[in-house]
Amino acid sequence: MSRTPTAGTGLTATIGPEITALARGAAILGTGGGGDPYVGRLLAEAAIREHGPVPAVPLDGVPDDAVVVGVALMGAPTVMVEKIPSAVQFTQAVRVLMDHLGITPTHIACIEAGGVNSTTPIVAAAELGLPLIDGDAMGRAFPEIQMVLPTLYGHAAAPMSVTDEKGNSIVLNALDNHWAERLARTVTITMGCSASIAQLVMSGAQVKESYVPGTLSLCIRLGETVQAARTANEDPVAAVARLLGGRILLAGKVTDVERRTQTGFARGTARVSGTGPDHTREAVLRFQNEHLLVEVDGRVETTAPDLIIMLDTETGEPVTTEGIRYGARVRIVTAPADPRWHSPAAHRLVGPGYFGYDTRPVRFDGVPVPTA
Amino acid sequence: MSRTPTAGTGLTATIGPEITALARGAAILGTGGGGDPYVGRLLAEAAIREHGPVPAVPLDGVPDDAVVVGVALMGAPTVMVEKIPSAVQFTQAVRVLMDHLGITPTHIACIEAGGVNSTTPIVAAAELGLPLIDGDAMGRAFPEIQMVLPTLYGHAAAPMSVTDEKGNSIVLNALDNHWAERLARTVTITMGCSASIAQLVMSGAQVKESYVPGTLSLCIRLGETVQAARTANEDPVAAVARLLGGRILLAGKVTDVERRTQTGFARGTARVSGTGPDHTREAVLRFQNEHLLVEVDGRVETTAPDLIIMLDTETGEPVTTEGIRYGARVRIVTAPADPRWHSPAAHRLVGPGYFGYDTRPVRFDGVPVPTA
Repeated sequence: MSRTPTAGTGLTATIGPEITALARGAAILGTGGGGDPYVGRLLAEAAIREHGPVPAVPLDGVPDDAVVVGVALMGAPTVMVEKIPSAVQFTQAVRVLMDHLGITPTHIACIEAGGVNSTTPIVAAAELGLPLIDGDAMGRAFPEIQMVLPTLYGHAAAPMSVTDEKGNSIVLNALDNHWAERLARTVTITMGCSASIAQLVMSGAQVKESYVPGTLSLCIRLGETVQAARTANEDPVAAVARLLGGRILLAGKVTDVERRTQTGFARGTARVSGTGPDHTREAVLRFQNEHLLVEVDGRVETTAPDLIIMLDTETGEPVTTEGIRYGARVRIVTAPADPRWHSPAAHRLVGPGYFGYDTRPVRFDGVPVPTA
Repeated sequence: MSRTPTAGTGLTATIGPEITALARGAAILGTGGGGDPYVGRLLAEAAIREHGPVPAVPLDGVPDDAVVVGVALMGAPTVMVEKIPSAVQFTQAVRVLMDHLGITPTHIACIEAGGVNSTTPIVAAAELGLPLIDGDAMGRAFPEIQMVLPTLYGHAAAPMSVTDEKGNSIVLNALDNHWAERLARTVTITMGCSASIAQLVMSGAQVKESYVPGTLSLCIRLGETVQAARTANEDPVAAVARLLGGRILLAGKVTDVERRTQTGFARGTARVSGTGPDHTREAVLRFQNEHLLVEVDGRVETTAPDLIIMLDTETGEPVTTEGIRYGARVRIVTAPADPRWHSPAAHRLVGPGYFGYDTRPVRFDGVPVPTA
């Protein structure tokens, strides 16, 4: 990001050539899921080539009366790669929603910084000529619409729009954010398992209260850190753990992967046998798109909402849950999520219990969190 | 209907106590499906008690610049009986759509005169204080949104709304009427298999061109005819066949019913062994919610789009495909659909081939229709 002072509050930067670093960093925050940012990166690069770098406003620089719209791609990551979304889909999602509400947006926001949805809002912002907010509603990747911090503040995801590349579009109003998820999911599946959404229309004041600040610049720093460590022949995995304030849980070799696709999710288990100093230890990771739980020698070491990240031991490249291969040398990093994800209400929304694991939440540092 | 001349073109009648007759007639036009009008009748009766009789405008009395909105209940008829829709759902569907489009409706229209959707528009018209159009978009019952005569005139079902009793609502725009069906169906299923829809927003001129005239008063006449014949100890089935310009194909006894629920439809077969003069003959009816094909002694006698109606031999009461019971004494009546349902394009939309039966369309009188 090139930082340039502006007349308003805070600093405004732009996102241009940093897209490559941002996409790599987003894959790290994606904790194995969130969709491969590759396709989104290509779309964002094309949009920036055409319209120029996108201004990125820090959270505290957003005016209280701003009209902010969140943009994302919804659906199965495996489908997105084959059914490439078109740039116009995202602007269409925003336009359909704005026409319905009769308002004009001033800023585009990222809902999910982890994975492909770090870059899809950049496409919309570039095409619409609007600034992007440097932050997101999760601070990581989660698979469902209601799993955003604004839910905990009582903010509604709907009215929201869902559009496809064929010209179909819907606007939905929902009883709550769980119903928004249900309705938008079923429409997305009918549209072919991949659709663009515009949602979480909020004022600047509401965004400042409920978003995670700086996650897009964090993605860029993460990506740049991995690249810099490799160039300097330093340890990229250690650099990632340091930047995220996390720990390296284990280094090892993938000895087993079991994967099945259920209700639109890639569910499964990966087994990593320790190597080197860890040669007596074994980790088991349980995932549903994202890594949600990691055990070492039978003890739960970390669960969602904290971050469980699998990185290639040598290159520091993030490994998606779809991409885990037998024999791969990996290191497992765990890192803290935004602290607001650790309230009892938040645990009901994104804790291990919601995902069907019979355990209390355990923080990135191995400390169990009392649940209400 | 009480007919009273008005200042405008045509005559305006009102629908009040005629609801009972209308609902019975609608079940006859429902050809076994279309949803039992019982629940709709109760809702319409309550709405009329509260707001007074609903003015019903004949098709040729609708001003060309009228703004007409079609109203219906969508979903599985079996669910509607358990999850009773609320009157406010229908007005909500109209309001959501009108707010989205920024227009004010002048008339409510019936999309499907056969079955429950003969009465649901009466609820909306009474609640909204708007006149109803005496006609419908099918002239019978069909299970899918694109199966309306307006589709053949190039009129779009969407923008349309889908609302439920919980407060969820969507507005959808679709590539074509097949996509409107797919998206609305999936949303309806998520909402609990029963939802209210407002759709087919058209001008008065478009409605006059593409609707079937007089189907609501036909329903009332049908219902009254059955009642009158019973009171006079005459044959109600013969009276129905006469009124519809159809024929009595066979009288007999139900000897077999095979029913399964597939993709939201009640699919199956009923076997009727002839009695009396028909004692050497046997009919087989194939249905998917509606009766779509009837064979006698292996010969296809009638298929959709023409009407195949099963009536109780003695009372003339229509028998729904869900209600066919072993041993019941029934007579099968076949009757002509609106002639516009017999173009090659119409047969692709609602002919036996669309429903998966490997036969060319056969008219109510047993004459096969050449297909394009």
